[in-house]
Amino acid sequence: MKHFLDDDFLLDNDVAKRLYQNFAKDMPIIDYHCHLNPKEIADNTTFDNITSVWLDGDHYKWRVMRACGIEEKYITGDADDQEKFFKWAQIMPKLIGNPLFHWSHLELKKYFGFQGVLNADTAEEVWELCNDKLSRLSVSDILSMSHVKVICTTDDPVDSLIDHQKIKEGCFETKVLPSWRPDRLLSMEKEDFIDFIHQLSKVSGIEIDSLDTLKKAVLKRMDFFESMGCKISDHGLSYVMYEPASAQTVEDIFLKALNGKPVSEKELLQYKTECLKFMAAEYHKRGWIMQLHYGVQRNVNAAAFEKLGADTGFDCIGNHAPVSSLACFLNELTTLNILPKTILYSLNPMDNTAIDTVIGCFQDSVSLGKIQHGAAWWFNDNETGIKEHLTSLANQGVLGNFIGMLTDSRSFLSYTRHDYFRRILCNFLGELVSRGEYPNDDALLKNIVQDICYWNAKNFLGL
Amino acid sequence: MKHFLDDDFLLDNDVAKRLYQNFAKDMPIIDYHCHLNPKEIADNTTFDNITSVWLDGDHYKWRVMRACGIEEKYITGDADDQEKFFKWAQIMPKLIGNPLFHWSHLELKKYFGFQGVLNADTAEEVWELCNDKLSRLSVSDILSMSHVKVICTTDDPVDSLIDHQKIKEGCFETKVLPSWRPDRLLSMEKEDFIDFIHQLSKVSGIEIDSLDTLKKAVLKRMDFFESMGCKISDHGLSYVMYEPASAQTVEDIFLKALNGKPVSEKELLQYKTECLKFMAAEYHKRGWIMQLHYGVQRNVNAAAFEKLGADTGFDCIGNHAPVSSLACFLNELTTLNILPKTILYSLNPMDNTAIDTVIGCFQDSVSLGKIQHGAAWWFNDNETGIKEHLTSLANQGVLGNFIGMLTDSRSFLSYTRHDYFRRILCNFLGELVSRGEYPNDDALLKNIVQDICYWNAKNFLGL
Amino acid sequence: MKHFLDDDFLLDNDVAKRLYQNFAKDMPIIDYHCHLNPKEIADNTTFDNITSVWLDGDHYKWRVMRACGIEEKYITGDADDQEKFFKWAQIMPKLIGNPLFHWSHLELKKYFGFQGVLNADTAEEVWELCNDKLSRLSVSDILSMSHVKVICTTDDPVDSLIDHQKIKEGCFETKVLPSWRPDRLLSMEKEDFIDFIHQLSKVSGIEIDSLDTLKKAVLKRMDFFESMGCKISDHGLSYVMYEPASAQTVEDIFLKALNGKPVSEKELLQYKTECLKFMAAEYHKRGWIMQLHYGVQRNVNAAAFEKLGADTGFDCIGNHAPVSSLACFLNELTTLNILPKTILYSLNPMDNTAIDTVIGCFQDSVSLGKIQHGAAWWFNDNETGIKEHLTSLANQGVLGNFIGMLTDSRSFLSYTRHDYFRRILCNFLGELVSRGEYPNDDALLKNIVQDICYWNAKNFLGL
Repeated sequence: MKHFLDDDFLLDNDVAKRLYQNFAKDMPIIDYHCHLNPKEIADNTTFDNITSVWLDGDHYKWRVMRACGIEEKYITGDADDQEKFFKWAQIMPKLIGNPLFHWSHLELKKYFGFQGVLNADTAEEVWELCNDKLSRLSVSDILSMSHVKVICTTDDPVDSLIDHQKIKEGCFETKVLPSWRPDRLLSMEKEDFIDFIHQLSKVSGIEIDSLDTLKKAVLKRMDFFESMGCKISDHGLSYVMYEPASAQTVEDIFLKALNGKPVSEKELLQYKTECLKFMAAEYHKRGWIMQLHYGVQRNVNAAAFEKLGADTGFDCIGNHAPVSSLACFLNELTTLNILPKTILYSLNPMDNTAIDTVIGCFQDSVSLGKIQHGAAWWFNDNETGIKEHLTSLANQGVLGNFIGMLTDSRSFLSYTRHDYFRRILCNFLGELVSRGEYPNDDALLKNIVQDICYWNAKNFLGL
Repeated sequence: MKHFLDDDFLLDNDVAKRLYQNFAKDMPIIDYHCHLNPKEIADNTTFDNITSVWLDGDHYKWRVMRACGIEEKYITGDADDQEKFFKWAQIMPKLIGNPLFHWSHLELKKYFGFQGVLNADTAEEVWELCNDKLSRLSVSDILSMSHVKVICTTDDPVDSLIDHQKIKEGCFETKVLPSWRPDRLLSMEKEDFIDFIHQLSKVSGIEIDSLDTLKKAVLKRMDFFESMGCKISDHGLSYVMYEPASAQTVEDIFLKALNGKPVSEKELLQYKTECLKFMAAEYHKRGWIMQLHYGVQRNVNAAAFEKLGADTGFDCIGNHAPVSSLACFLNELTTLNILPKTILYSLNPMDNTAIDTVIGCFQDSVSLGKIQHGAAWWFNDNETGIKEHLTSLANQGVLGNFIGMLTDSRSFLSYTRHDYFRRILCNFLGELVSRGEYPNDDALLKNIVQDICYWNAKNFLGL
Repeated sequence: MKHFLDDDFLLDNDVAKRLYQNFAKDMPIIDYHCHLNPKEIADNTTFDNITSVWLDGDHYKWRVMRACGIEEKYITGDADDQEKFFKWAQIMPKLIGNPLFHWSHLELKKYFGFQGVLNADTAEEVWELCNDKLSRLSVSDILSMSHVKVICTTDDPVDSLIDHQKIKEGCFETKVLPSWRPDRLLSMEKEDFIDFIHQLSKVSGIEIDSLDTLKKAVLKRMDFFESMGCKISDHGLSYVMYEPASAQTVEDIFLKALNGKPVSEKELLQYKTECLKFMAAEYHKRGWIMQLHYGVQRNVNAAAFEKLGADTGFDCIGNHAPVSSLACFLNELTTLNILPKTILYSLNPMDNTAIDTVIGCFQDSVSLGKIQHGAAWWFNDNETGIKEHLTSLANQGVLGNFIGMLTDSRSFLSYTRHDYFRRILCNFLGELVSRGEYPNDDALLKNIVQDICYWNAKNFLGL
């Protein structure tokens, strides 16, 4: 029996332990998908207390607090930071099996040296211990402790990237690159669509009054993002649609929307299909990666959304994600020879096997593992989800080509998620070897482990 | 290697054994969802033979008998009870891995002291052993042997609850409460809908000729159920729909149906949405729990249904269960501030993770674990199903808040299903501890185990 | 820790080892579903080299080669056989966890006595070893080494079955039977539909100008297939549809299509429903088995399809497979009393549990396990897929009735897939016994193992 969170945490056999210790644990990190605030990096922020770096903005934690009947005041409300932390500490024991229980203790151990168990009894001790250390711990310290080589943030096309500029001019060890996330461009159904178009007009200097000028403005911003080092785009979709339409039809739809007139569900899909296709061609040309993630329904609790806004813990898995339209969309890009390197993710783990069979249909010899099934994240960033993802990928495709983990996090302390992933990966591989399913050959295994931990992502991003 | 069904059955590690022996096994049972016959409780029935208490009405067993080519005569037909039992005994060896194999032997062991294996050779011995014991074993003896504190039966709104009245007046150790299951009220598409409305008119004393009078009649019956101790409602849906409509529209639909005119699929959904919303508001007001279960298609074999009726083993999983309408329905109740404590179940285990993410969007501080993902039951009441349910709940939510197991059974011998569940639960928790994923701390673990086995259900029901 | 691919490969406990060694490994094979070329059997072909028997036609291997960035030239192109083999050898190490890694080494061990690991370094040695042995290894030698008793090939209704005739006249140890696979008859949407109808007219000698003459021609071919020993039909559907229509409606649809006019999606489903129903009735009458497999989307990469044709590695899982229409279709056949013995497969493993509950609704006493959930194959023919299939079948139905494995292969070396399956089966059963879930009784276990490996398929096929 193991002790809680000891060195062999999640490592069940000797091969796994060896792989983790010798090959995985010291590899640097490329976090190609996160929501870290570039301003906090540029300013090399230090944090007032553990609540501000740990609980603020972390809707994963907020959800389970609500499930335990904690009042909103102590979650997103005006309670003071210490009270919020204590409420969080108090519910910890109930989170048996939840990755938040593991992550929290991994973070307390790695960044603060706390070896115990967080709960109501230890809350005060942990509060003081962490705050004391945090006063001497800047963002760059945390990143350096975590061996983070590259961060790709998440940025709106209209963003000035001023903080990225500052970071570029500084002498940061970690490379921080913007990512192109044009969700607002595609979300014609949302209230702020026209507002977004106006902003885009302004920052691009192009008066947008047609699909053509829209595309020109987009290209201009892409040029700017590229000049700032952007390598990767990101799209959050409810599912990957495919509803082709003529240029004129899409033009009409766009003008309708621009004039505040309602568009039908079908028209919306036509517009999205056309826009995404246009951008995919650009990604292909520029060598950018296209991330498509779906299988999520956002802001399903309207009252909560109105009070607290987006990304506050009111999203769930969506189970409408037809493989048919996904395959048709990828096929269209293939036919036009504009399919960029692509990463597909579904938040619904029931889509895993289907995705792995889809990516197998669109690989080509241009690049190794050109179409990727992205890591298990968000709802799936737990031992079960990660293991199921690895298993399905190994069964249906080529595990050795996988570009590995991301954090998807808003907190600088979340880099232990890579450690979590690497342990699960090594355990998965170690079990295969232990059961006689793969040769016990370190020359082979080292490559597989280090490729997945680091090299595949590096090569895929073209760094 | 373990012996068949020994004391450590399903318990694979020392922590699991300790948790089960010290904390789980002696906890009382709250069976908040079953189909026991209240008349048999009121009459404190004894059973003629093992067939009448074990095989009669148990469509789980009937299905596997049919799959083994047993003639219907020996299943639901006019063969005598001993012949039926022998046929059942004869197919047992083929049921390797099936929970019926486990349950049957757990029941033979617990209630009859039979330690062997049931098959064609032992059928006669078992038949005689069981029948001998049964002659001295009344329903109240069985319930008392099983430590059942509370039973919630399944009752139609037009039911007189006369047996519940008798039970109330008797001196039963077990509290037996009616549950409000108005499926016939919602099933406008069924032949007996008008008949049901007439019955409802009669028992409520309210002439139903409009939606308004329908609601009045429903309220009257709810008052009656409440006076009889009802705490919980139950709805069997093919999926949770959301098709809002104006009051006038629904009124028109209802009158159409009442006059025997056909209603469209959309109208049916509008009627169901309105009725369920109306009742949800009442549940919220009265502090009743709302159970919604779905993901099942009933009576899919029409020939068999015509011959044998409902609940005879001809239901299967239905895979049309959009999260979108489920989320919209819950959102509507939240917006109107009428969302009662709710338990969601899908019979399709592929919905597990989605449900666990949905419940996370509607929790609030009014109650601990206000929205529950109900236990794995019916098609999922096996080790795989229970473990997957626990795993998903732990990953996505707060396992420590879970209200635990139910039987869903028609047989008084089925209380070993709680034992089965508790073993799987303790094994699940024990594995987490053994792998270093949770502290090996009995103070914490005892709470988790006993809360899930008993206290959470007690508190949730407000008993 | 086990050595790579040792005798206990995939067998984790002593019971599993005993079951495999004593009961499973020497059982003969009935391959009731494969794509072996009857001409190669009739000619008792020997192969030029390992590429021609191993890589030619194997789109499972082609897919992972593409995912590793191998140029098409070395996959389906004009590179020479040795180059192709070397490319294949070179990517092997990346395939950790993939069944191709296991199968390949099982095949190299069984048929060529190679005990090492295939990779770039050993490629030359393996190439020479295999080619040397292959020069002395005919198809009949391979089949005999594999203990194959029966092969059911896959044949078009218009096929002359000339090779089957030759095989019949020869003195083959293995019984080789044709299977009736009328996909082109149902695929009215495809370009070669009219062409197929003309071919069918020609080979049947019946001028097809109506639904009635179509049916007559089909019957004539069925008679011919029956005279050649056919026992089993096979249908590849995207999902099991149910769209009933009057005879006249279907007649009109057929004539429309025959005249090259477009038919709607609904009409297509009506035609398919009618045709499949008509043939099901015939299967029922003749005692043939009906295989229905679905959950796949074919040829999703149009550019690749145009270049390389069908079955070249561009199919993926399809996730539109409503249980409702499947159940309605089976119900219609049951109502008409024309439901033949049936095997259902979905390529989407997410359908497993639903299928197992569906088959439970249509069993009858006419035959043991009349409706089967077919083996995990194609995308699911890996340890995970096989284990999940067995688990679901055991949980929901009667594992002891299962008709077991098939190869679905185009290569004569694929019979190790049966060995793979048997190891996983024995491990599954052994684990149940070891955990005390089933008696450790060889009399019972031997029956279960050997029934699933051989006897159930033999009886089901009526051989």
